[in-house]
Amino acid sequence: MESSGYTFSTEFSVRDYECDIQGVVNNANYLHYLEHARHEFLVSKEINFTELHEAGIDLVVTKIEIEYKFPLRSRDRFIIKISLKRDGNVRLVFIQDIYRIPDEKLIARARVTGVATKNGRPVPPGDLISKLGLE
Amino acid sequence: MESSGYTFSTEFSVRDYECDIQGVVNNANYLHYLEHARHEFLVSKEINFTELHEAGIDLVVTKIEIEYKFPLRSRDRFIIKISLKRDGNVRLVFIQDIYRIPDEKLIARARVTGVATKNGRPVPPGDLISKLGLE
Amino acid sequence: MESSGYTFSTEFSVRDYECDIQGVVNNANYLHYLEHARHEFLVSKEINFTELHEAGIDLVVTKIEIEYKFPLRSRDRFIIKISLKRDGNVRLVFIQDIYRIPDEKLIARARVTGVATKNGRPVPPGDLISKLGLE
Amino acid sequence: MESSGYTFSTEFSVRDYECDIQGVVNNANYLHYLEHARHEFLVSKEINFTELHEAGIDLVVTKIEIEYKFPLRSRDRFIIKISLKRDGNVRLVFIQDIYRIPDEKLIARARVTGVATKNGRPVPPGDLISKLGLE
Repeated sequence: MESSGYTFSTEFSVRDYECDIQGVVNNANYLHYLEHARHEFLVSKEINFTELHEAGIDLVVTKIEIEYKFPLRSRDRFIIKISLKRDGNVRLVFIQDIYRIPDEKLIARARVTGVATKNGRPVPPGDLISKLGLE
Repeated sequence: MESSGYTFSTEFSVRDYECDIQGVVNNANYLHYLEHARHEFLVSKEINFTELHEAGIDLVVTKIEIEYKFPLRSRDRFIIKISLKRDGNVRLVFIQDIYRIPDEKLIARARVTGVATKNGRPVPPGDLISKLGLE
Repeated sequence: MESSGYTFSTEFSVRDYECDIQGVVNNANYLHYLEHARHEFLVSKEINFTELHEAGIDLVVTKIEIEYKFPLRSRDRFIIKISLKRDGNVRLVFIQDIYRIPDEKLIARARVTGVATKNGRPVPPGDLISKLGLE
Repeated sequence: MESSGYTFSTEFSVRDYECDIQGVVNNANYLHYLEHARHEFLVSKEINFTELHEAGIDLVVTKIEIEYKFPLRSRDRFIIKISLKRDGNVRLVFIQDIYRIPDEKLIARARVTGVATKNGRPVPPGDLISKLGLE
């Protein structure tokens, strides 16, 4: 997966309930972390889900690719760094990499593809593009 | 907590992702099991959340008391048995007991209090009472 | 449930994935929040689960009573305040109250009973008492 | 992603607590479903995680690629179909496709790569190969 200039980051700590029998964070919880980081990113760009939704527009994830490099454990701190780019007319691609704090060990790399939909059909992201600094 | 004549039951199996570092089902997941069992119960009584919601009526949990007697582990099978009664004019009380299968070991006992709300205010459960067989 | 002099507090924000169809935090997730707050509290008292576990001692929740007063919604900030007391020789009781930030609206009140177990049997909490400031 | 001859399948129903504000199953929960289906598959092949773990061998997911085609909603029933193949000496690849029941609508397609590790290092899956019918 490509690396690139990150434009946003947010920090987390592992909570014990996110770990499973093996003592490591369960794979599904990484998707929770990634979702929360994307939402923080969008909020930082003043993108308001509720207003969008009332205008019939939803942001929908269509594909996730994640490589698990090294497990997170109880109470580990980590940072998710994000970069964003366009892929064709309608797709947005979030590169989201997870690094442990403070040693910066690479924990996971993800590539999350999303589209804007209007009444359930993909549409060009329009106004979102300028808000997201992609022009 | 009181025991009583159960009127509904539903079976589950523990999934590995529901277990935590200690190798047992995390305490919060019991509330997921209990919620799912209550919803199955209400559906069995032909109570339709969506129709109720569109009529402005929501069923809201106001209190949960749960005693953890013995832990569930990976792949354990269990059954949740439910009885229901009224408490005053507006409250419904679900007694929900969890037993391991097949040895019937008591795993947890819960008492879940709910109210019907209309536009956010508690109301007598009305039509629900006859559907729930509480008259 | 009793109120009392809180001795610890920790802050959270609601993450969108913690909300359910009704747009509010799912009831089970409050137990996750409460667990995380207790663990933060115990760590602040230098109580080390791993060392305890290797000495055969586990801290086990035996009972949770929670009253849901008002729902948390997407992105709400909140604080969990904790006080702790003994109940008989072997039980510890955590009072955990959740308040929204910044308006201090009471969201939920919980009373969580735990015991120390050694090789699966309840034991007096011993050394924990002085560490927890309960003498 | 490739399709192929499925060799295992297991059925599920959506539980309400798995849905999020949008009224659809949260993306992360698909990974829970996929994990549970893989574990059911391995158990059906008499692969015993506990025995493996005691022999120092763990099965670890190194990569997940998932395409979300259509959302699951409250109470939807669905089936996960699995096929398995080798990728080089040490990797196993699970193709896991999710179809709604009864209309067989394709909901999601996933490709999950795993390795067997011994004391934390990848090893050829050895005995697993014959148990999994991959010889």
